Amino acid sequence: MNTPAYTALTHTFTRLYRLGHLGALAGWDQAAMMPPKGNAARGAALAELQVVMHQMLADVRLPGLLQSASAEPLDALQQANLHEMRRDWTLSTCLPERLVQAQSLATSRCEHAWRSQRQNNDWTGFLGNFREVVNNAREEAQILSQAQGISPFDALMDKYEPGSRSADIDTLFDDVKTWLPDLVQQVLAKQASEPVLAPVGPFPVEQQRALGVDLMGLLGFDFEGGRLDVSAHPFCGGVPEDVRITTRYTEADFMRSMMGVVHETGHARYEQNLPADTRHLPVGRARSMGLHESQSLLFEMQLGRSAAFLQLIAPRIALHLGHQAAFEADNLARLYTRVQPGLIRVDADELTYPAHVILRYEIERDLINGLMAPEDIPAQWDQKMGQYLGLDTRGNVKDGCLQDIHWPSGSFGYFPSYTLGAMYAAQFFACIRRAHPDLDTRVATGDLSPIFDWLQQHIWQQASRRPTQDLVLQATGEKLNPQHFRSHLEQRYL
Amino acid sequence: MNTPAYTALTHTFTRLYRLGHLGALAGWDQAAMMPPKGNAARGAALAELQVVMHQMLADVRLPGLLQSASAEPLDALQQANLHEMRRDWTLSTCLPERLVQAQSLATSRCEHAWRSQRQNNDWTGFLGNFREVVNNAREEAQILSQAQGISPFDALMDKYEPGSRSADIDTLFDDVKTWLPDLVQQVLAKQASEPVLAPVGPFPVEQQRALGVDLMGLLGFDFEGGRLDVSAHPFCGGVPEDVRITTRYTEADFMRSMMGVVHETGHARYEQNLPADTRHLPVGRARSMGLHESQSLLFEMQLGRSAAFLQLIAPRIALHLGHQAAFEADNLARLYTRVQPGLIRVDADELTYPAHVILRYEIERDLINGLMAPEDIPAQWDQKMGQYLGLDTRGNVKDGCLQDIHWPSGSFGYFPSYTLGAMYAAQFFACIRRAHPDLDTRVATGDLSPIFDWLQQHIWQQASRRPTQDLVLQATGEKLNPQHFRSHLEQRYL
Repeated sequence: MNTPAYTALTHTFTRLYRLGHLGALAGWDQAAMMPPKGNAARGAALAELQVVMHQMLADVRLPGLLQSASAEPLDALQQANLHEMRRDWTLSTCLPERLVQAQSLATSRCEHAWRSQRQNNDWTGFLGNFREVVNNAREEAQILSQAQGISPFDALMDKYEPGSRSADIDTLFDDVKTWLPDLVQQVLAKQASEPVLAPVGPFPVEQQRALGVDLMGLLGFDFEGGRLDVSAHPFCGGVPEDVRITTRYTEADFMRSMMGVVHETGHARYEQNLPADTRHLPVGRARSMGLHESQSLLFEMQLGRSAAFLQLIAPRIALHLGHQAAFEADNLARLYTRVQPGLIRVDADELTYPAHVILRYEIERDLINGLMAPEDIPAQWDQKMGQYLGLDTRGNVKDGCLQDIHWPSGSFGYFPSYTLGAMYAAQFFACIRRAHPDLDTRVATGDLSPIFDWLQQHIWQQASRRPTQDLVLQATGEKLNPQHFRSHLEQRYL
Repeated sequence: MNTPAYTALTHTFTRLYRLGHLGALAGWDQAAMMPPKGNAARGAALAELQVVMHQMLADVRLPGLLQSASAEPLDALQQANLHEMRRDWTLSTCLPERLVQAQSLATSRCEHAWRSQRQNNDWTGFLGNFREVVNNAREEAQILSQAQGISPFDALMDKYEPGSRSADIDTLFDDVKTWLPDLVQQVLAKQASEPVLAPVGPFPVEQQRALGVDLMGLLGFDFEGGRLDVSAHPFCGGVPEDVRITTRYTEADFMRSMMGVVHETGHARYEQNLPADTRHLPVGRARSMGLHESQSLLFEMQLGRSAAFLQLIAPRIALHLGHQAAFEADNLARLYTRVQPGLIRVDADELTYPAHVILRYEIERDLINGLMAPEDIPAQWDQKMGQYLGLDTRGNVKDGCLQDIHWPSGSFGYFPSYTLGAMYAAQFFACIRRAHPDLDTRVATGDLSPIFDWLQQHIWQQASRRPTQDLVLQATGEKLNPQHFRSHLEQRYL
């Protein structure tokens, strides 16, 4: 193998993977374990690690190695790896140090103040810090845009969802907007007369935890290579070799925590089943945020809230939490598909969730592309919330445009990943269902292998070997087709 | 402040402190949280961190900066800091890369095989790997010896206990040997007729944990800056800003876990009370392993097993574990001062523990100085075990010279720290008692402030501002005086 430049690059990126392990662990610990007084030292340690890793990527030899490697005899996997390494290098090095520092300062100030400004419904105070966050993000978008020859907003979105373009997202989302508001109204009318029994708590935390662990086992989580813990905001963290998922418990309600565990287990299985021989290389990473979300949403929405799965787990719920009428499978299915338009995205049901995403996407797209000013956000929010979900948010920025951490922390372009994930999940599940006409029966009787086998082969083991678009085409025989998502919603909710 | 070289050095060492934070956290997690499949990736990540930190210390500019800084106008604290920085630099850079790698390979092979060889009582197999470990350690000792102008064994001991010399340790330990064997026999005779009630379990883990947390609070552990968790081998880890102690529980016996928590809380309070303004610098670190052990042993032995303290906590034990006759304070005191010579160091009582240490110290000293060959260890062990504790260990290397991880992992010169710690603890406590003739009454009624105030002022806040010998002299008005240890043992056990 005469590939000295490529080999040198993999050496550097393996070192970065190993150091990244420590950052991932420290991040998980910060959210799940760390007492409050550890926070300043932890922040300083993580920042120092970032500096060390950035210095490795900014090594003056890297551009030459990337150049030389592209002329070396690489196989397809190595070429894909080189592509990902070049992408990492570009994203890490193309921004001037001055801008990176300004962003770090502005977002940390804005995010810190946002925590109380949100409580106080203080849009004016927020705007004072937020203008600089937007200005920095626009400058970053301009630089990335020029480096890649795509629009400024696309350049930011590309960080999370490589290859996605707003022209395509516009088409997808404009279509959703033509049918979603009507569908929501139809479903609301239908569900108004549906009887639903509410579970009666309290549900002790230890019992909820045991139920969660039981479901994780059922869903194939490998406890020899991961853990379940508690954090204020549930997430999937850690490293592929040791995946750490979290949930939070309230004794009055087990449903949210239980389904949260199912959701995070979807993320976890993706990480746990990345190909072991390349997971230390960029080509061995999960493909994108949207693909990651497709796995959690396939577990939570396609599988987890299906009648067949709820039939399977109803006895387990009763086993852990005690018998009650509300735990009948039919009633669980009604509970877990209840639709109720609301102001808060993270509380939204499966059906109204896309409206929250589309609204945010349209605003951040215009904001970054310079077609909207920060001060116009509340009015746009009010107008779209009325149009898409029939809700009045005027004067309520607390439960409106100040509800998410994404913008105060400078993450523009992330929101579409949620709904792209839901669409991918619907398309994947439709494909699995086509291959297994008896899928519901198998799920209801505890055989989830058709789902896991398909995901293992077509998604998890593919990692980042090819662009998302190619991966989806190879896996399902077609490119992203939102019709599967619409059909799924209509079949489940109408 | 015209101290550019010194300032540049503190910048480097602050970076090292921040990166060390991630290593400490990952080490704690490895022992307390990590599932088994995470181990290989964790090992690779920690090794990579070591490489990065070593590269920072091996920076070619450092010798010049150390040289220049010594000519800068530094105050006493800065001079002490410079001294510690130079020491770190010397220890990290004076060994050839070849030797460091050979040591890493040999000790990791030897330690790995030792885990099963110990089970199998396989001295011959162990010796096969151990010879190289000893050869490497002798070479390291030679190099460090020449760099510092002290004997080879002293050079290894100095890594853990800066400033300690075997000439002094010999004097201390030879004295102990003149009175300890007789004292043990006297105490055994006395205790033979003493009635002791054994506590009757089981003691549920949750109740033991609550008791431990209760005692940690009583002992001043700051839970806003630390945690209590579980690991196979209890330890105090984490960082000063976030101290993580561990224990292990067996339902049949709460006594060991409870006193283990008291012990680790002593370590923890040292770390938590290092001066906040310098803890990121070498001068702000805990002084030595012996001083660290003095804090845990002051908490466990001087305070924790005293009649006054057991009187204070007896009601708390009953509160958490339920009432039983064995929890009367007098009986607890008899339980916690029970003497029984045994083969295993970590199970030894306060009185016989020094014999285990002296035996090991004498062997490792002669081994490193080339006065004994590795194959002579078992015979020496048998002879000394008979002489110091009257026990027969012939043919039983499993519970003899193969019982500790120290030698297979290449740590020679560490053992004296345990007994030095016990001696410092006795001297410190005697000093506190002199200043507070009513100490026992105050302890028994829950006022531990005389102890904490003294430690805070004389030990914790001193960190590494001065050599151990000076610190002890300043704190107690005399240099290390083993008479305090002997008096303590005689008063408690006779």
